[in-house]
Amino acid sequence: MTLKVVVIGGGSSYTPELIEGFIQRYEQLPVSEIVLVDIEAGAKKVAIVEALSQRMIEKSGYPIRVSSSFNRRQALEGANFITTQIRVGGLKARELDERIPLKHGLIGQETNGAGGVFKALRTIPVLLAIARDIHDICPQAWMINFTNPAGIVTEALLHHSPHKKVIGVCNIPFNMKAGIAEMFSCPVENVEIEFIGMNHFVFGKRVFIHGEDRTKEALTKLTEENLDYSPANIVSLGWSKEFVTALQLLPNPYHLYYFQTEEVLKKDLDAFRKNGTRAELVKQVEESLFQTYQNPALSEKPKELTQRGGAYYSEAACSLMESLYTNKQDIQTVNTFNNGSIQDFPDDAVVEINAVITKDGPRPLAAGKLPQQVKGLIGHMKVFEQLVIQAALSGNYYKAYNALLMNPLVADEKKAKVILDEMLKAHKDYLPQFYCKGAGI
Amino acid sequence: MTLKVVVIGGGSSYTPELIEGFIQRYEQLPVSEIVLVDIEAGAKKVAIVEALSQRMIEKSGYPIRVSSSFNRRQALEGANFITTQIRVGGLKARELDERIPLKHGLIGQETNGAGGVFKALRTIPVLLAIARDIHDICPQAWMINFTNPAGIVTEALLHHSPHKKVIGVCNIPFNMKAGIAEMFSCPVENVEIEFIGMNHFVFGKRVFIHGEDRTKEALTKLTEENLDYSPANIVSLGWSKEFVTALQLLPNPYHLYYFQTEEVLKKDLDAFRKNGTRAELVKQVEESLFQTYQNPALSEKPKELTQRGGAYYSEAACSLMESLYTNKQDIQTVNTFNNGSIQDFPDDAVVEINAVITKDGPRPLAAGKLPQQVKGLIGHMKVFEQLVIQAALSGNYYKAYNALLMNPLVADEKKAKVILDEMLKAHKDYLPQFYCKGAGI
Amino acid sequence: MTLKVVVIGGGSSYTPELIEGFIQRYEQLPVSEIVLVDIEAGAKKVAIVEALSQRMIEKSGYPIRVSSSFNRRQALEGANFITTQIRVGGLKARELDERIPLKHGLIGQETNGAGGVFKALRTIPVLLAIARDIHDICPQAWMINFTNPAGIVTEALLHHSPHKKVIGVCNIPFNMKAGIAEMFSCPVENVEIEFIGMNHFVFGKRVFIHGEDRTKEALTKLTEENLDYSPANIVSLGWSKEFVTALQLLPNPYHLYYFQTEEVLKKDLDAFRKNGTRAELVKQVEESLFQTYQNPALSEKPKELTQRGGAYYSEAACSLMESLYTNKQDIQTVNTFNNGSIQDFPDDAVVEINAVITKDGPRPLAAGKLPQQVKGLIGHMKVFEQLVIQAALSGNYYKAYNALLMNPLVADEKKAKVILDEMLKAHKDYLPQFYCKGAGI
Amino acid sequence: MTLKVVVIGGGSSYTPELIEGFIQRYEQLPVSEIVLVDIEAGAKKVAIVEALSQRMIEKSGYPIRVSSSFNRRQALEGANFITTQIRVGGLKARELDERIPLKHGLIGQETNGAGGVFKALRTIPVLLAIARDIHDICPQAWMINFTNPAGIVTEALLHHSPHKKVIGVCNIPFNMKAGIAEMFSCPVENVEIEFIGMNHFVFGKRVFIHGEDRTKEALTKLTEENLDYSPANIVSLGWSKEFVTALQLLPNPYHLYYFQTEEVLKKDLDAFRKNGTRAELVKQVEESLFQTYQNPALSEKPKELTQRGGAYYSEAACSLMESLYTNKQDIQTVNTFNNGSIQDFPDDAVVEINAVITKDGPRPLAAGKLPQQVKGLIGHMKVFEQLVIQAALSGNYYKAYNALLMNPLVADEKKAKVILDEMLKAHKDYLPQFYCKGAGI
Repeated sequence: MTLKVVVIGGGSSYTPELIEGFIQRYEQLPVSEIVLVDIEAGAKKVAIVEALSQRMIEKSGYPIRVSSSFNRRQALEGANFITTQIRVGGLKARELDERIPLKHGLIGQETNGAGGVFKALRTIPVLLAIARDIHDICPQAWMINFTNPAGIVTEALLHHSPHKKVIGVCNIPFNMKAGIAEMFSCPVENVEIEFIGMNHFVFGKRVFIHGEDRTKEALTKLTEENLDYSPANIVSLGWSKEFVTALQLLPNPYHLYYFQTEEVLKKDLDAFRKNGTRAELVKQVEESLFQTYQNPALSEKPKELTQRGGAYYSEAACSLMESLYTNKQDIQTVNTFNNGSIQDFPDDAVVEINAVITKDGPRPLAAGKLPQQVKGLIGHMKVFEQLVIQAALSGNYYKAYNALLMNPLVADEKKAKVILDEMLKAHKDYLPQFYCKGAGI
Repeated sequence: MTLKVVVIGGGSSYTPELIEGFIQRYEQLPVSEIVLVDIEAGAKKVAIVEALSQRMIEKSGYPIRVSSSFNRRQALEGANFITTQIRVGGLKARELDERIPLKHGLIGQETNGAGGVFKALRTIPVLLAIARDIHDICPQAWMINFTNPAGIVTEALLHHSPHKKVIGVCNIPFNMKAGIAEMFSCPVENVEIEFIGMNHFVFGKRVFIHGEDRTKEALTKLTEENLDYSPANIVSLGWSKEFVTALQLLPNPYHLYYFQTEEVLKKDLDAFRKNGTRAELVKQVEESLFQTYQNPALSEKPKELTQRGGAYYSEAACSLMESLYTNKQDIQTVNTFNNGSIQDFPDDAVVEINAVITKDGPRPLAAGKLPQQVKGLIGHMKVFEQLVIQAALSGNYYKAYNALLMNPLVADEKKAKVILDEMLKAHKDYLPQFYCKGAGI
Repeated sequence: MTLKVVVIGGGSSYTPELIEGFIQRYEQLPVSEIVLVDIEAGAKKVAIVEALSQRMIEKSGYPIRVSSSFNRRQALEGANFITTQIRVGGLKARELDERIPLKHGLIGQETNGAGGVFKALRTIPVLLAIARDIHDICPQAWMINFTNPAGIVTEALLHHSPHKKVIGVCNIPFNMKAGIAEMFSCPVENVEIEFIGMNHFVFGKRVFIHGEDRTKEALTKLTEENLDYSPANIVSLGWSKEFVTALQLLPNPYHLYYFQTEEVLKKDLDAFRKNGTRAELVKQVEESLFQTYQNPALSEKPKELTQRGGAYYSEAACSLMESLYTNKQDIQTVNTFNNGSIQDFPDDAVVEINAVITKDGPRPLAAGKLPQQVKGLIGHMKVFEQLVIQAALSGNYYKAYNALLMNPLVADEKKAKVILDEMLKAHKDYLPQFYCKGAGI
Repeated sequence: MTLKVVVIGGGSSYTPELIEGFIQRYEQLPVSEIVLVDIEAGAKKVAIVEALSQRMIEKSGYPIRVSSSFNRRQALEGANFITTQIRVGGLKARELDERIPLKHGLIGQETNGAGGVFKALRTIPVLLAIARDIHDICPQAWMINFTNPAGIVTEALLHHSPHKKVIGVCNIPFNMKAGIAEMFSCPVENVEIEFIGMNHFVFGKRVFIHGEDRTKEALTKLTEENLDYSPANIVSLGWSKEFVTALQLLPNPYHLYYFQTEEVLKKDLDAFRKNGTRAELVKQVEESLFQTYQNPALSEKPKELTQRGGAYYSEAACSLMESLYTNKQDIQTVNTFNNGSIQDFPDDAVVEINAVITKDGPRPLAAGKLPQQVKGLIGHMKVFEQLVIQAALSGNYYKAYNALLMNPLVADEKKAKVILDEMLKAHKDYLPQFYCKGAGI
């Protein structure tokens, strides 16, 4: 048996990493066909990526066919795996997600705060449409989503699409494991972190090195030796001894938005005044990357890509596909139904959790109760996520207001309205559910 | 049978209102002995209050004996009801609770934010000692606590003292009912508000006028007709249409600290620069009140008292004592064990809730689930309260840090430390559990 | 304002008690119109009841109109309260419910065991149709259901009909309170029993006499003084000291089916061999009652009725209607949504519980956790009830089998099938959902 | 590193199987020392087993030392693993557990019904004492318990001993997997059954063959092809099509006591009249086995042992020790803290569940909700288990009565007393907590 993979958002600059992953695992995961699907506006980018991919595969010698398509439904025929990595509204929309909150003195970030809310509002309806197509055309296929905000989006898909074979992945858990491996000078395979929480709001509860609980040491190293594990795209400010000692948990890099809000905001505002938004910076990086990709002599993933924030994304996705295909039963960290793994959440909440990956999908490991130290805040964020989903589906103004009001980075009854009104207007083209009667669910 | 009431913190300027309450209800609640207990530092004030109380009772003609005492254990002998209204560290401590956070750009308020945390840290051990005395000397007596933060303090008492006959009361629910009565031009007896939440973080879920659900009208009036119900001591800024429409709940006046933080902070800072802290203002009001109390011609509660923030406090306390004594089975809003009334909280969480008041204590009415709109934030605040209690009992530095970190008005890993260190030092005399080995629990 | 009451199953021999109730409470509950609705097969009985009712009202002097109707939808127009007391299949069906299980060596009883299951399967669809009519024609009206098995039936209505103003009542709690009043030689008004559980499976958790907890005394009297409180239609065998001491709860009379199964079965089999089923006995009693009712000189509820099992049924129903109408806020025991009152059950489970009765409906009092002593069994019975409802709605053979299998009085994989097959056949005319494609839900 | 294993109850006839297991896995699990601990009354048996074990090891050529000891605390020094397979009161006590209930017309069985209750009452205090010794002497060691009733006993240990490194194992899940492997003609390694429930009351929720869900086929084969998977010691009566179709679950062999009670009782009574109790039968088998063991030419596990009920016990125990030692992270079925794996049970309930076995212990896989079909009964049994534990610890007569009353195989308020009194007397020597003041906990 050979496998067909459809990459939705195939024109992404991350795609070559994915191609590399398929090549490296060909013996275990015999992918014979890859279709890069994108929208017509991305025609130029997808053509460049397709050509590079073909050169990479040719070099590998494996019998893998790569093609591209603007016809999603056609591409889905016979697919075994679908990866989704899309950006509704492109980098232009991201720029607005960053710029508008900053203008009002709030964190402007694409997956947190008001920006994250709006990314979700734009993305959820599009991914739901994709999931419905998958369910219709290739109902046995697994949909592997990396699109951010990955946790919210996966919960929306698992609750509201008929397709239930959906798993969300993020590179943060992988980054944290790699960081811990470096801390303990051991291979990453020997590291297990017991994760608890939701995507971008996950904590490491315990650290095991070759099966032994080394949590206390990891916490000490984090503060005393100042060893960090943030990915390239998040500038870490480090964590204080008090913070780590009080929580007795490994924070994830995104927590700085919530616990160092004022400092981050100040830094972001400075950077913004100097260089504009991060979206604008990324745009330049992307342009340079696509320049590199066009080099006909290039037949491997260029180093520049590795140095970007998305490191380990395709590693996470390919590992997952391999284990699903081979019933490998190894432990990976995924976004899936809670199903009891975190006692404080209902069964059908989507959480980021360690799971045994079987042919039948992920089986979460029981992680017990949320630690009292962060339980209140995690519960609060989970409800916030649900409010975002309700807003995204209904296109209801007050639900969107409620979501913004309950986000700890907004949390102000007046600002919630000002920002909501401005962002609804700015993103109008990508939020039909708020503008066209009957577009909401 | 006649009843003995012990008023702990009897030198409080609020005591005359309580005395008035006992006089007005003498036929139903035959109190024959009142002992005002205070500390020796408060000798002068308690003497003034005692004298005024005696004049008030003399005028009433009822056979009630009033005395004062510095010996708490002696005073408790034979008591049926004990009210507790104390201020550990006096107004001086309150001033620090307000001044230090403001200095660091945070809300400085005696029951919210860092100030509220420290008020709890000082108060909980003292009230626990009182409760242990009660349990020892008059175990059948009810302890009625108004000391703030009333919700946190009542939870600490019900969890950690052997005395379980403890009920917390607050005047906010009564104020809200009175406000709604005015809104609907009806007697307050005809108003029922279904409350859900915790003290100072309670919401009105439904409003009934003579048994009929008039919630929608009340919400409309609140925003469109701008009819408010804040007590005298909280300057209301009003609620926006968006806020009330999105929540579909009656906010309580203290919510402005959480949803209008920036505006309130600005206002408080302005006021602080002009007039110093609210504590200093209250000090002046108190002095003037005690001047008035000393007038030997005064034999009733003076009007000036009614105009202060504590309106309805003694109404709440006396109503409660009457129903406990007569098995009246009317509905009152109290702080007591959840016992299932709010589905999202464990049985032994202390909540502010409507309850039928029987001789056997309050029987909470089932209030169902927390509304999704505020569920996350209320859950977050509940965990915060528990972190405060753990800090107060243990005297553990990191638990206190954790509590501050998780308070939405602090929520910053650096500021939490700065404020904690400064306040621990400023309040050193009243926080033995943090300084003396073995003083914690 | 005057009120219209529709009595569905108006030809029941219990109706005169209801009429008496309306007469006695006319000043508080001004009922001006009563319509007795029945099916045409019951024409003769309803005519007799109607005539007696008219004589009773005439004697009272109150301006109440009584009529009868076979047209349910017409009768419902303008109704304020609807009571439902029906018997689908009549006493003939009850006879089968009793006879068939007995034949196979199992308890044959109309509300417990296999008989109870089948009574529910026949009754639920009919009551759902009535509730839909009510919702359509008089959506503001309260439906007060006494039809057995009252708990199961009320849960089916509250979950599956659009009409949510439904309350189930049973005379057992009232009987138990009356029994306790006798035990303590006090008026029943002074007795409060804290009930916990479901209809016919409810326990008394605590007993209060004039607000004081007298549970221990009540338990002692129950065993040592052999004071009982069973209603007339349940022959009590008494409870052993061990049973009551171990449980520390007041059992209800129906518990004997579960805890004295063998003895009850033996007694029932003896009685059956001598006199046939209880249904046949009741038939004779009914015939004699209707003879009495036809006496044109009779203008009050005859004594013979009082002596039957249904004592206090109309008391329960009329009290409930009065409190709903006047917003009385007294405590009554009803079958309603759990809404958190019993911590172990979900919000939407229907339980038998003390509630404050307001114009807006019952507000359950929080009753805490199920006592460990009986928690397992009560939880088991609750799931059994839900299996019965699923079977009744779906007409699915295996769901009905599952319900029988899980009933502790059946609990046998072979007997469940034998009895199911035989009873499905015997009751075929009244179980269209099991026979006609598309009749189930 | 080499390992020391202490076998408590080392004189058991099952020990040679364990020895064989250690020999077969020596490369992965380098056991260098085995101490067989027993009581002096078992001196003769333990000597025979020790000698056979030494011959087996000698033949294997591995450097394993075997010795025996009556001094438990001494033997525990330096232990890495302790297995516990004891029988308090010996086969004589088992005989009483079987004989007394049968005499009163109830199932007499050593792990179910009244017999199971008494086995637990005798066993729990002894195992608690062993666990306390382990915690004291070799706190890093794992205690692997096979003593029945294994679920109840493991819950008692995990809740009430300071030693938390305790895992309960049973051969039933392994037997069921082996049966399914035979059904599907595949190696047992390819079979996964998703188990849910408690020991001896566990159900198979889903069956996977090489990762694919084949549950429906397994259920069909079970009824239509009459393929069974009962172990040798439980005579299966087969399951009806109705039973399996209604439940949609794989029953475990012990369920026949609860769903075929009458038939089993009849069969057991017949067998009892003919051959006495099963205990007496086992006694003969044991005597014959020990005859065989004494043959100095025997240096391997004799075939007769394989044919007994305990098949796979040592397989289960050795697999577990290997994975704990090597951090293998494979999936095994164990009795451990629920920790959220079954949503309906609290975190600290002990359940029988699939878990990933790591060096740090078992990590249960989330199994979701109990299926509605059996949820009530499983919940009921779980509470029953807790009542048994409370009785075993307290030595309280009424708690023991409560446990018997709530066991579905007793469930009679009169019989519970009769049997309790008789069995308390019969087992007096092994139930000091019921007889000596202060012996209970």
